[in-house]
Amino acid sequence: MTLLGRHAILASSAFLFLFVVLFTFRPVFKLPEHPYQASRPTPDTCHRCSAPRKNIWADLSEGEADELLEYLYSGPNDLNLTRSEKATAWDNHVAFVEVLPPNKTDAIKYLEGTDAPPARWARISVNNGSTEQAGIYQYMVGPLPTTQETIIQPLLYCYNSGRHYVRNPLPNMEDITEWFAATGEELSDIMDDLIPGVRNPSNLPDAPPLMGVTRPAVFNDDGVVVSWAQVHGPGVRFDAWSLNPQGIYCKFEIAGRDKSQWKITQWYYNGEFYNSTQDFRQAWKEPGFKKLPPNHDGKWTAAQPDQQGLASRAEAGPVMVQPAGGRFAVDEREKFVSWMGFEFYLSTMQATALSLWDIKFRGDRVIYEITLQEAFAHYAGADPMQAGMIWLDTLFGMGFNMYELVPGYDCPPYATYLSTSFQQKDKTVFRNNSICIFEYTADHPLQRHTTPRQTTISRNTYLVVRSVSTVGNYDYTIDYQFYLDGTIEVKLRASGYIFGAYHPQNSKAKRDILQYTYGYQVHDQVATSMHDHGISFKADVDVAGSANSMVKLDIAPYTHQYDFDSDPRNTMRLKQSTLEKEQGFNWPPNANAMYIILNNDTTNSWGEKRGYRITPGTGMGIPPHLTVKDSTAMGNAAKWSDKDLWVLRQKDGERRGASEYNAMEPLDPLIDFSKMVDDEGIVQEDLVVYFTLGTHHISHSGDIPNTLMHTSATSVIFTPHNFHDRDPSRESAQGVRLDLNGAGKGANVTYFGARYEKGVKLDLVSLPISHGKNCQRVRSREC
Amino acid sequence: MTLLGRHAILASSAFLFLFVVLFTFRPVFKLPEHPYQASRPTPDTCHRCSAPRKNIWADLSEGEADELLEYLYSGPNDLNLTRSEKATAWDNHVAFVEVLPPNKTDAIKYLEGTDAPPARWARISVNNGSTEQAGIYQYMVGPLPTTQETIIQPLLYCYNSGRHYVRNPLPNMEDITEWFAATGEELSDIMDDLIPGVRNPSNLPDAPPLMGVTRPAVFNDDGVVVSWAQVHGPGVRFDAWSLNPQGIYCKFEIAGRDKSQWKITQWYYNGEFYNSTQDFRQAWKEPGFKKLPPNHDGKWTAAQPDQQGLASRAEAGPVMVQPAGGRFAVDEREKFVSWMGFEFYLSTMQATALSLWDIKFRGDRVIYEITLQEAFAHYAGADPMQAGMIWLDTLFGMGFNMYELVPGYDCPPYATYLSTSFQQKDKTVFRNNSICIFEYTADHPLQRHTTPRQTTISRNTYLVVRSVSTVGNYDYTIDYQFYLDGTIEVKLRASGYIFGAYHPQNSKAKRDILQYTYGYQVHDQVATSMHDHGISFKADVDVAGSANSMVKLDIAPYTHQYDFDSDPRNTMRLKQSTLEKEQGFNWPPNANAMYIILNNDTTNSWGEKRGYRITPGTGMGIPPHLTVKDSTAMGNAAKWSDKDLWVLRQKDGERRGASEYNAMEPLDPLIDFSKMVDDEGIVQEDLVVYFTLGTHHISHSGDIPNTLMHTSATSVIFTPHNFHDRDPSRESAQGVRLDLNGAGKGANVTYFGARYEKGVKLDLVSLPISHGKNCQRVRSREC
Repeated sequence: MTLLGRHAILASSAFLFLFVVLFTFRPVFKLPEHPYQASRPTPDTCHRCSAPRKNIWADLSEGEADELLEYLYSGPNDLNLTRSEKATAWDNHVAFVEVLPPNKTDAIKYLEGTDAPPARWARISVNNGSTEQAGIYQYMVGPLPTTQETIIQPLLYCYNSGRHYVRNPLPNMEDITEWFAATGEELSDIMDDLIPGVRNPSNLPDAPPLMGVTRPAVFNDDGVVVSWAQVHGPGVRFDAWSLNPQGIYCKFEIAGRDKSQWKITQWYYNGEFYNSTQDFRQAWKEPGFKKLPPNHDGKWTAAQPDQQGLASRAEAGPVMVQPAGGRFAVDEREKFVSWMGFEFYLSTMQATALSLWDIKFRGDRVIYEITLQEAFAHYAGADPMQAGMIWLDTLFGMGFNMYELVPGYDCPPYATYLSTSFQQKDKTVFRNNSICIFEYTADHPLQRHTTPRQTTISRNTYLVVRSVSTVGNYDYTIDYQFYLDGTIEVKLRASGYIFGAYHPQNSKAKRDILQYTYGYQVHDQVATSMHDHGISFKADVDVAGSANSMVKLDIAPYTHQYDFDSDPRNTMRLKQSTLEKEQGFNWPPNANAMYIILNNDTTNSWGEKRGYRITPGTGMGIPPHLTVKDSTAMGNAAKWSDKDLWVLRQKDGERRGASEYNAMEPLDPLIDFSKMVDDEGIVQEDLVVYFTLGTHHISHSGDIPNTLMHTSATSVIFTPHNFHDRDPSRESAQGVRLDLNGAGKGANVTYFGARYEKGVKLDLVSLPISHGKNCQRVRSREC
Repeated sequence: MTLLGRHAILASSAFLFLFVVLFTFRPVFKLPEHPYQASRPTPDTCHRCSAPRKNIWADLSEGEADELLEYLYSGPNDLNLTRSEKATAWDNHVAFVEVLPPNKTDAIKYLEGTDAPPARWARISVNNGSTEQAGIYQYMVGPLPTTQETIIQPLLYCYNSGRHYVRNPLPNMEDITEWFAATGEELSDIMDDLIPGVRNPSNLPDAPPLMGVTRPAVFNDDGVVVSWAQVHGPGVRFDAWSLNPQGIYCKFEIAGRDKSQWKITQWYYNGEFYNSTQDFRQAWKEPGFKKLPPNHDGKWTAAQPDQQGLASRAEAGPVMVQPAGGRFAVDEREKFVSWMGFEFYLSTMQATALSLWDIKFRGDRVIYEITLQEAFAHYAGADPMQAGMIWLDTLFGMGFNMYELVPGYDCPPYATYLSTSFQQKDKTVFRNNSICIFEYTADHPLQRHTTPRQTTISRNTYLVVRSVSTVGNYDYTIDYQFYLDGTIEVKLRASGYIFGAYHPQNSKAKRDILQYTYGYQVHDQVATSMHDHGISFKADVDVAGSANSMVKLDIAPYTHQYDFDSDPRNTMRLKQSTLEKEQGFNWPPNANAMYIILNNDTTNSWGEKRGYRITPGTGMGIPPHLTVKDSTAMGNAAKWSDKDLWVLRQKDGERRGASEYNAMEPLDPLIDFSKMVDDEGIVQEDLVVYFTLGTHHISHSGDIPNTLMHTSATSVIFTPHNFHDRDPSRESAQGVRLDLNGAGKGANVTYFGARYEKGVKLDLVSLPISHGKNCQRVRSREC
């Protein structure tokens, strides 16, 4: 029996219930590791600049984790744990351990020098299999390192459900895989007949089996786990399985942990339902049984550029270089970055990927924390798979699925790469070079002006911190961008394979898939399925202090009789109002309002309140929220998706807007975001905003083989609004001034900042990179 | 007497009425020419590839223009022309001559090889001064070169006013300047007292005088030209005059052409109105007269980077290079560009800058024409200047004001630069290197995906065609971008100086400028004025043929009882409708609809209609339309500003959505866009869309000294939507595939397309560039 699919790289069995291979014909296929993640990062001292303070948000080191696990397994406690390598489905084991970041109230005291670093605490996630109803339980353990004072207690304070656990729908993975394998054996003659040549067209010795891809399995009211699965071709070399649906669906029910009670309750094929496998087999044997054509994988799904390309592709294209080395400093030990007045810390968590902490610009904290919260993909369609399909991707780990970045392609060759690690099932998993940091110069200036006397132009060089979370078929490239004027951008780009639907041309079921109802045909029997991507981010903003207010600045039509006019004039004006209570709202039509976070008690030199504006950024239009109203499939798991932007009061107990286990109990999730919006006053309070990136993805032929990132981008930016007295980029931009000396006589040229002279020698990197080289390319800042 | 201001570079007196220097104390200040526009472009044959056809839209060459002018001045006709150099205000002279582009119906026959090139015609704009009511008249002259068959006739067919002229509000520039100079003399004692030290603080020998900056002057119902002017400091070296308002305003009336009838009817100062200059003087003499503080120019308005910058600025930043040369071909003679399957022609016109013609992708025409139509800036404020201020910038010439681009700053050093020229007042004016074309590689890939078996990534290299129109205080950088998948982007970025308002702190007038009503304080007595920028573009789309329809694809919530569900499901669906009539509409809230132009009669291989989607692109959020409803100041001059997007039927007589003379007769403009939207059917017709870029510019301290381009960008893209069978970028993208060989064993790397190896030598250009060098950097395509 083989387990495989979108998220199979996740080692925790808690994460493993979504994709299972239904029909096996081959021995177990071993997943290869990423090849260049073998070496562990070594401590690096080549960056001379060190962080001003410890990174108090850093995940547990391997040593910390090992010490903690020893404490958990050997110390006296009530958890009844068995080491992962020995644990059966009927034991309790530690799924993962991770840092429990300090409360902001404690962290700030340390950052401001009024207190010692907050105590280290860990969160542990325990797979409880020892009771009939298996569950996944969360505990907090601390202080660390463990001493007599260390305690283990249920992690309750950051879950607004009042619980610290979810039920585990599929705890007995071995039984489940055996049960599915047996089903596969039973049906192999039908599959050979209905979808000939799909399984292993090239007769490869290690060809993957057919896949049974399920939509999320959740408990019904009777405590039975119910879901639908569809047969998929595995794709050539596994790449494009999501583009290979075969139009054969079954509904399964898993009641309790005794596999003799489990059953397939329905088959669906060519618009007909069959209430048992026997019924399906019987119908298939009938002479009049109408077969649907299968989908065959082939070159059409190959993601790489075609071998036969246009001739010009053989000529080298433009490439960004930085022969003089980076102008930012990275303290690799503390994951601290400084660049052109910006300073911040990085950390990673398994569910939520990269966090940025204590982002300062020219000494002012602007954002205390920015972290991805959750990512959903919500599908719609006319078949039982697509109609009920949603994914909540933190369950699979947006952080755990951050893989190595490819220099020169994911990031410029000169980028600095940082590695990270996670602890799962008593082991440390390394993700080498999974974060890249680089400067880039935009194709356009930051500023320019020509007058009869002079021309001035400044280059727009910005800093990017990038990681890519590949969750199964889809890749999310997530950027944090920093601009010379203090602007901070959060940007998301999607690529990878879409999740196709079986397109039953000329079939009975076609009546339900009227053209343009859910998508388009993109191959022989493949249709796109419309889906919304929504990726939530939390930004704990601290604009000129932590006492902040959010104002709405309306840009409104206005008719007014001015003193100097004889008649009333149709013009416009601004109108500012302060948001009084916690609330969600949408980006305004015609961009006719601005949302500004400011501190009423501080002003710049001109008496204007210092603020940062939050606005849709350089993505495609506005980042939308979920189309679906009160989604049946998503329940209460992601209520943040109802609006574009939320403003809440910061609370230590509202650490996140979602739990990665919300997907398992969508109707009664560990964290229900809507409960967090509870009418509290937000004037001159410590504020947190939640915003959504993503797209309505109406995929079409241009998404085959992969979605393209230039048109799938969305972004939100935080940009200074009267925050400084004058544009601060004048102090950091590289630029030029041409003084024009009269007709035809040329110009005197003054350069601001360094530039390259002729004959600079490029030193591009080859793949794969090695860690040490990256390090040497980072120059220390002067500090 | 001195003429100066935002648009003084324009030589046509028709263009010169907006800014006049009110108070002169110095000899005439001679405007310097741009220094590197001296040499004329020489014919260049280094590009081997030639355009498949003639550029039938190209502006008149110097030879064509000279021949035409000779015909006009020497031939018998009714125009009664005097050569410009000899013409007085009471003569008729040719303001400019320019190509009159062929009608599309004729052009298409030529492009498709069924007819000869259309005849060349010119448009001539004549300043008629010989009659009491001076006017500016438009004629069409052709065919060219002139023969016995050549005729001159009023240009009527493309103006929906039924007229071919506008009245000229300020034809007697010499008289006007004298009159203003006399006024200046009369008031010099008051100015010396009220705004001491503003005029020439450094006692420079060539210091510019104070400026009288007027808002647009238009005829009132009695045929009298009425406007307000404000005293501005000239700015240090003229750069920042728009940031130096002095809070002294006067209303002037110009009735007829006899300057003895002209008068200043009102002064406005510190919240008080004075009904004559004498009244103002009298009040000033009173002991209790309260003076406002002046605005002093200084380092705060300097646009260039500060001399004292951050230390890191002294290190060289990243730079884009293309040592192997460009991968596109330019036929410089025909201004024809080809790159990666794209082909198009360029032309320029004085009012509307760059046009792109016959844009094809992989052999399919996608857009027949894309041209900027008009650009407005609409202000609001509490003083008589800002309250009534609008600019319609084609009047000043978005093309005529395209100046030389600076290599390495406006465009990459390796860009190809093209020159253009315009004919004004019987002379050819050259704008060398005013268009740049370059490839750039984005900071992010076009596509990426990681699977357990392989990683594929493709680089996102795109082509940019750029020009910058500097109209007085403001710079519009306009990009046409082409992506490997067939996507075409139109992008606008603004920089330059904002137009500040005098901010009467602690004054009587302060009551009208309550904080946040129209802007923010940004310096001692300077406030920002809210203003909308709106820049209209016309795109004559031909998607898979010229018979097109526009569909709206709604992305809508949907509740449905599916066969496989026990209860109704809340989900979503698509709903497509066809727009039946010409109309305007706005970008939808929550991006919940897509606008797609398609041809109902063509399908791709999967049966889906071939289309292009038009959508807000990679600017900041959605490009908005004008806030003001039924603007008093703008009248009927720019009714396209009411909506984001318009779809109309293509007509040869609806060449443009605006005339550059609309600003002169805003209530009864030569072209009233609203008349073009007249209920015609648009299903399977030749369609034209008009869309608006721009921003609600709520400028703040970060706009001082100059607006920054990264946050002022807006964009619209045209992106394939089922246009091809599969993503065509797979044939042109450079990429990499890593085949992962199992745990820790590295990867086999396959590169698609060329890349740089180590040790490439940079050859960066120094400023100023010379034309020949650019040419050599362009490699010819293989064709």
